[in-house]
Amino acid sequence: MIRIFHASEGVSLMEVMRREGTALNAPCGGNHSCGKCRVKILAGANIPVTEEEKRLLSEEELKEGWRLACSVYGPGEWTVEVPEQDKGARVMTDGGSADGTKLDPASRTACIRIEKPTLEDARADGERLGQYRLSLDEMRKLPRLIRENERLYVYELRRQTKDYCESIVSAEEIGNLGVAVDVGTTTMAAYLIDLQTGEQLGCASEMNPQRSFGGDVISRADYACESVENQRRLQTLVVSAIESMTRRMLKECGRDKKDVRHIYCVGNTIMMHLLAGLETGYITKSPFTPVYKYGFTVRANEMGMGLENAHVSLGTCVAGYVGADTLAAVLACDMLHAHELSLMVDIGTNGEIVLGNEKGMVCCSAAAGPAFEGAHIRCGSGAQDGAIDHVKIGNGEVTFSVLGGGEAKSICGSGLVDAIAEMIESGIIDETGRIDEDFLPEEYEDRLFEFEGNPAFSLDGKNENGVFIAQQDVREVQLAKSAIAAGIQVLMNEMGAEFDQVGKLFLAGGFGNYIDRESAVKIGLLPKELADRIIPVGNAAGTGARRAIKNAAQWEQADEVLPKCMRYVELSARADFQELFVEKMMFGEEEY
Amino acid sequence: MIRIFHASEGVSLMEVMRREGTALNAPCGGNHSCGKCRVKILAGANIPVTEEEKRLLSEEELKEGWRLACSVYGPGEWTVEVPEQDKGARVMTDGGSADGTKLDPASRTACIRIEKPTLEDARADGERLGQYRLSLDEMRKLPRLIRENERLYVYELRRQTKDYCESIVSAEEIGNLGVAVDVGTTTMAAYLIDLQTGEQLGCASEMNPQRSFGGDVISRADYACESVENQRRLQTLVVSAIESMTRRMLKECGRDKKDVRHIYCVGNTIMMHLLAGLETGYITKSPFTPVYKYGFTVRANEMGMGLENAHVSLGTCVAGYVGADTLAAVLACDMLHAHELSLMVDIGTNGEIVLGNEKGMVCCSAAAGPAFEGAHIRCGSGAQDGAIDHVKIGNGEVTFSVLGGGEAKSICGSGLVDAIAEMIESGIIDETGRIDEDFLPEEYEDRLFEFEGNPAFSLDGKNENGVFIAQQDVREVQLAKSAIAAGIQVLMNEMGAEFDQVGKLFLAGGFGNYIDRESAVKIGLLPKELADRIIPVGNAAGTGARRAIKNAAQWEQADEVLPKCMRYVELSARADFQELFVEKMMFGEEEY
Repeated sequence: MIRIFHASEGVSLMEVMRREGTALNAPCGGNHSCGKCRVKILAGANIPVTEEEKRLLSEEELKEGWRLACSVYGPGEWTVEVPEQDKGARVMTDGGSADGTKLDPASRTACIRIEKPTLEDARADGERLGQYRLSLDEMRKLPRLIRENERLYVYELRRQTKDYCESIVSAEEIGNLGVAVDVGTTTMAAYLIDLQTGEQLGCASEMNPQRSFGGDVISRADYACESVENQRRLQTLVVSAIESMTRRMLKECGRDKKDVRHIYCVGNTIMMHLLAGLETGYITKSPFTPVYKYGFTVRANEMGMGLENAHVSLGTCVAGYVGADTLAAVLACDMLHAHELSLMVDIGTNGEIVLGNEKGMVCCSAAAGPAFEGAHIRCGSGAQDGAIDHVKIGNGEVTFSVLGGGEAKSICGSGLVDAIAEMIESGIIDETGRIDEDFLPEEYEDRLFEFEGNPAFSLDGKNENGVFIAQQDVREVQLAKSAIAAGIQVLMNEMGAEFDQVGKLFLAGGFGNYIDRESAVKIGLLPKELADRIIPVGNAAGTGARRAIKNAAQWEQADEVLPKCMRYVELSARADFQELFVEKMMFGEEEY
Repeated sequence: MIRIFHASEGVSLMEVMRREGTALNAPCGGNHSCGKCRVKILAGANIPVTEEEKRLLSEEELKEGWRLACSVYGPGEWTVEVPEQDKGARVMTDGGSADGTKLDPASRTACIRIEKPTLEDARADGERLGQYRLSLDEMRKLPRLIRENERLYVYELRRQTKDYCESIVSAEEIGNLGVAVDVGTTTMAAYLIDLQTGEQLGCASEMNPQRSFGGDVISRADYACESVENQRRLQTLVVSAIESMTRRMLKECGRDKKDVRHIYCVGNTIMMHLLAGLETGYITKSPFTPVYKYGFTVRANEMGMGLENAHVSLGTCVAGYVGADTLAAVLACDMLHAHELSLMVDIGTNGEIVLGNEKGMVCCSAAAGPAFEGAHIRCGSGAQDGAIDHVKIGNGEVTFSVLGGGEAKSICGSGLVDAIAEMIESGIIDETGRIDEDFLPEEYEDRLFEFEGNPAFSLDGKNENGVFIAQQDVREVQLAKSAIAAGIQVLMNEMGAEFDQVGKLFLAGGFGNYIDRESAVKIGLLPKELADRIIPVGNAAGTGARRAIKNAAQWEQADEVLPKCMRYVELSARADFQELFVEKMMFGEEEY
C-alpha cells in the first residue's frame, strides 16, 4: 500500500498514520525500541536517521529507504510504502465448542397479539404489552404500533436475576442474532450465532486496531490516560473493529444488521475498559483497581455502534488483570462443575492462571510480558506467514517449519519455546540461560555470532540478516516463563494442593494451542508433573462467550456466579511469589 | 405590554404570538368562537374585521382597535397592546396539608466512606459504593472521585418495590429538595419541600402556558397531534413553566438548583402525556386510551430541564380521563384508609369522581365541559381580578362581590353557580332552565334583554355592556351539572350504595373551594343528601403530590396500590349514564 502522509512540525509519521487510520504494528507503542513500525519512504522530505533507527534497522534496509514511522518527524510530506501488516496472521478462533450448549438465550422475542382498545378494555398502550420496561423513546412509538398492527414483537434481554435493560418494540419480526466477541490485545475474534437455531453462522477475526498504540495493554492504557481524546480514539478503534467483523459475517451469510440483537464481549480488564470508554489509568498502577467489576449492558448506539436493535454486554472482570476473557474460559472448561481440581493457564502478555473445582477457585495474573507474542524478541512476531513455528535442533542441524511456507522471516511464540527448549537440550544454552561461547558444542559454532555485544544463535544460518535467538531473547523468555511458573506455584500453595491432585491443565489461547507441550515443560513454563494432562483448549474465551450468548444461565454463571466463588490473589503483594519467581528463573524440568 | 409582531401571508397574529411565547388566553384554541384572545392594535396593516369579530366584540371595542388575535391574518406588521393575562388570577395552592406526613422520601442520600484501594483490597471502583446502579456516564466519573475524596455521596431514588433509576455520585454533599407539581389544565401549582427537614420552603403558581393553544385538554391534544413540532412546543411550554416556578421558589429561599433532586408531577392524563412528549391523539378519541398508565421516572435533562441532579417522576394515571391528579387527591383524602364510604369530586373541564373506601374504589370522569372555568360562558372567566364570585338575588335586587374589588368585568365559576341558583330561587329561570320572559317576576324585568336572539339576564344592569347570564350560559351549566350528577349516580349504582352510607363528600380543586355549597346543591350539581357532609379540600392533588414526595410509601401507594384497587367506569359505554344524564338535566334539588 502506497500512501502520502503530511506531518506538521514536531509530529511523527506514526502519529499521522494513526490519525489517518493506517494500520501499523507498534508493540512498543512508539517508544523507538521495538523496530516493528518500519515503513519504506519512496519520496519526500529528507529527515536525518536517528540512533535508534541505526540500531534497529540494517544498513541495507536504511539504504533501501526503510525507516521507523515513530522516528520520522515533521515538518514534511512523504510518499510511503506501508508493508501489509500481519499478513496471513493466525487468529485462534477454534477451540472447544459451544454446540452442546442448550439454546436458551437471554435475547428473547415475545410475539404479542395486540387486543385492540375498546371501551370495555381501555388499558393503556403500555399495559397491552405486559411487563416490559420501555424507554421513553420506545413509549413514544407505541400508540401507532399498537393501532396499526395485529401483533407486536418485543425484544428483551433477560436473565433470571436481572431484568437486564429496556426492551425494544417492533411491528416486524426480526431475527435473533448474537455476536460473541473476544477482544484480545493482539487479535480479536467474533462469532455470529443464530439464537433461534443455535447455529454458528460465521466467524471473523481481525488484528486489534489499537496495536498502533502499543502491543501491550499498558502502553495503550498509558496512551488513553493522556487525554480524553486519546481514550475516545482507542474506544472508537475497537468499536469499529467489532462493527466491521459483524458486518463481514452478516454479509457472508446474507443476514441483515437489524437482526443483530445481542453482542457479548469478553476480553482482559483493560480491553473491556477501553471498549467502554472507562478510565484505565488506575489498573496499570498499584493496587491495580478497575472501575467496574460486574458486567453491564448498554444499547449498541450508546457505544457508537450502528446496530439499531442491539444491546452490548461487557462481561464481568475479576480484577485489574483477570478479565472477562478468563471467566469465559473457565466457563468453557466447565471448571466449576468438576469434582477434581483443574488448572487453566492462558498465556498472553499476562498469564492468567486459575486453579479450582466445584468447591471454589483461586486465580492470579502473572506479568509474563509479551515475549511469547513476539514482542521484545529481536526476530519475534505473532503467528503469521513467514514465522518459524516449530524448531528441532540435533546432530548439528537446525530444522524448522515456517507458517505459510517459504523463507523464514521471524519466529513466533511456539517457535521460540521450541528453539529455547532445543538449545537447552543441545547444550547451546546452559541451565542459567547463558549462551556460553566457551562451552558451545562445536557443531553449532558456525551459527554463533555477536549481536549488540552479546552472543546470538542463528536458526537459518543468515546471522543478523536472518532469524536468530539473541542472548537478550533468552532472558525475556526466562522472565516470562518464571512468572507463569511461579504464579502456578503460588496458586497451588494457596489451595494447599499437590500436582497429583490436579486432573487437567487447560492451556488456553492461540499460543497455548500451537505450543509444543514437551518444549513448554522442558523450559519449565509448565509443570512436568502435568505434562500428560495438558489439554489445549484454543480460544476458550471465545467459546465461553458463545456459550454465554446462547444460554442465559451460562451468562449468569460467568457474570455473577463464577466471580463470587473465585478468589483473586495479587502476586505483587506476596513475598513468596518473588522468591518463587527467582527460583523458577533457571531452566530445567527439575525446577518444578 | 406593547409589542410589534410580524406575520407572513396566511399566518394569524395568534400563531405569531404563540411562537414568540407571548401569553394569550385562548380557551377555544383559536377557533374564533370564544372571543377571549382580544388584543388592541395600535398601528399597522389594516385587515378587514371578520364576522366572528363583529359577533364577539362590541362596536365600541372594534372602534378602539380591539381585535381577536385568531382572526387577524398576515401579511402584515402590527404594534399590539396585549392585555395583561389573567391579572390577579386565583390559583388554588392551599388545601389539606402534607405537614403530618412522615418524612421518609424516596430521594435518599448515602454518604459513603471510601476505603482507598490497596493491594489487599483491590475491589473495583464501582464496588466501593455498594449496590448502586450507575449509568456509564456516572461510572466514567468514578475513578477520580474515588481517589480524590474521603467520602462520596450517592443520590438515589428508591421505593420499596422499585430501584427506581440510576443513581448519581458526587464529591460534595448537596441538599435534598423536592418539588411537587400539580400540572393543571388552567393553572399550575408547585411546592418546594426540603426533604431533609420536611419543611415546605415555598410555593408558586402559574397559568398553564399551553392555554394559548386552547382552554381545554382536547384542543391542546388536537393541536399536539397535528405535528411532532406542535407536540414538542406544548411539551416545552409546560417544562419551562415547571422550571421557572422552581427557579422562583429557589430564589425566594436562597437555595441552589443543584440541590433539587426530585420533581414529582401530577396532572390529568393528557397533561401528563404532553409533559412526557407522548401521543395524546388516542386519549381524545374513543376508547380513550393513554400510552402509559403506571408512572415512571427519567432524569430531568431527558425532559429538557436544566436541573443536573434531579429526576422527574410522572404519576400513575388510571385512565384517559382519570389522571395522576385524581390519584394524588385520593391519597390526600386518605380515602383508601377509611372504613366508611367517601366520595371525591374534582370539578374542572372534566369532573373526576371517585367513590370508595378501604375495600376498593370506583371512579369515572364526567365530561362537564369548561363552563365552571368560565369558558363557553359569554361573560365567563377564571377566578381572577374583576370576576364576580358570589351573587345574591332577592327582593328585586342583585348583589354580588367582585374578586379584587372594583367594577365587575366577568363572572367566574362560583359566581355562575350562585347566579343560576339564585335565578332559579327567584323564578327567573324555570325548572327546565328556560329564562321565560312571559313568566318573569316583574321586579327583574328591567334586567332582561335580548342577546343573540335569546333572553339574557343582566347582573350589573349594564346589559350587553356589562356582566350577564345568557340563556345559552344556563344551558352550558345544565349540561355540566347533569354530567357530574349522573356520574355520581352511576358510581353509587356500581357500588350498590345509598347516600346515607357516604360519610364525606370531598370537593377538590379551586372551584370546589370557592363554590357556595348551598348553591351547588340547589342547582343539582351535588346531591342534597350530602349537603351537610361536603368538605372542600382545595388543591388536594397538590397535597397528594407533596405527600408522595415526602414519603416513599405514600408515593408507592399513589403509583402502585391505589390504581390496582380502583376500577374505572367508562361512562360513555353505559346506557344508564345517558339516561341519568337526561334525567339530571332539570334544575331542582328533588332531582337527586
